[in-house]
Amino acid sequence: MPDNQAPTDRTRIVREPQRAVYDRAAVYEILDEGFICHVGFIVDGQPFVIPTGYGRSGDNLYIHGSAASRMLRNLDKGVPVCFTVTLLDGIVLARSIFNHSMNYRSVVVLGTAVAVQDPKEKLTALRALSQHILPGRWAESRQPNEKELKATLVMRLPIEEFSAKVRQGPPVDDEEDYSFPTWAGVIPLELVPGMPINDPTLAPGRATPEYAKNYSRKR
Amino acid sequence: MPDNQAPTDRTRIVREPQRAVYDRAAVYEILDEGFICHVGFIVDGQPFVIPTGYGRSGDNLYIHGSAASRMLRNLDKGVPVCFTVTLLDGIVLARSIFNHSMNYRSVVVLGTAVAVQDPKEKLTALRALSQHILPGRWAESRQPNEKELKATLVMRLPIEEFSAKVRQGPPVDDEEDYSFPTWAGVIPLELVPGMPINDPTLAPGRATPEYAKNYSRKR
Repeated sequence: MPDNQAPTDRTRIVREPQRAVYDRAAVYEILDEGFICHVGFIVDGQPFVIPTGYGRSGDNLYIHGSAASRMLRNLDKGVPVCFTVTLLDGIVLARSIFNHSMNYRSVVVLGTAVAVQDPKEKLTALRALSQHILPGRWAESRQPNEKELKATLVMRLPIEEFSAKVRQGPPVDDEEDYSFPTWAGVIPLELVPGMPINDPTLAPGRATPEYAKNYSRKR
Repeated sequence: MPDNQAPTDRTRIVREPQRAVYDRAAVYEILDEGFICHVGFIVDGQPFVIPTGYGRSGDNLYIHGSAASRMLRNLDKGVPVCFTVTLLDGIVLARSIFNHSMNYRSVVVLGTAVAVQDPKEKLTALRALSQHILPGRWAESRQPNEKELKATLVMRLPIEEFSAKVRQGPPVDDEEDYSFPTWAGVIPLELVPGMPINDPTLAPGRATPEYAKNYSRKR
């Protein structure tokens, strides 16, 4: 796939075009720091936006869920989807209300998701998804059995039509506002993991694994 | 408006119905802790999902942006929208891969957004939006002027058709898996504010306001 893909009319950033990112490697960095997406799809003319976990493996995105899920059953019809990942980095306080903003990195991928049919690819995709969200966990868990695999739908969305939008840094005020007497700057925001909480039924003495104690999305 | 609204066929939680929340007060609590939504709308048969800040005031949600924004210009046509807010609370590690999950609180509101036309209501809505995201900031900023107000589109979405889905607490494993020798529990996740960063152009000696130093979404 081309590294720096020209956007389509549907993915070109119109507002604040200086915030546009079309570079595949930069987009993958955002996709790899995130693990929750918002999936948009249409049912009877109504758009729905549903949050769900995801994984990236190569040039594909994977989402999964119950084979009975309304969202996945709809996606499985081959309908157009919008897959959006947003990382919120801060609140930007300008002097003027008008120039207040957010620091963020967001990715939009458009396309059609297809169900992964081959049982071997399904297992590979589920492992990729698990590795994306919590590296190291797959190997230490009870593996999926045939019944569970059958009850799980895995959808693959190729990363073909995409763009990202990124704002970082301090506020930008109008020239005449810089003397306005108020504080200006950024309140940084970060999704921070807390101390892992043992399942109350956990056998005594079982150590908390490193991947849980030192969880981080920074890659 | 009724406090506990029956869901419609479009907002009824089908999967994991025990996670459904239809109580208006409980839904408002989630909406008030969040301030970034994902808005879904359709253009030429393609769903789009765009992140943006929002505010709640009474039984209305407000979003805003440039009058030239593709999203807002589309919403302004009176098309159906889906407004989704997601708060991520943790990663749930079960013994089996199959029972891994997330702790989260998410709200979906369906409806049609309308542009706020009355200049007075527009200013009130913008103040509500600002107060929702950063209480106290409005009064200390340079107020919007007429040109800025004209360049800003404010959309109102009444909170009429909605539902929330909430999962909290420890993993739930299949009975036969509780003896499986692995760690199980929850990695809590929270959006945490960092130390405010001064705008490099800030006049020396200007104190960081309390609302920036002690920023919190807990209400």
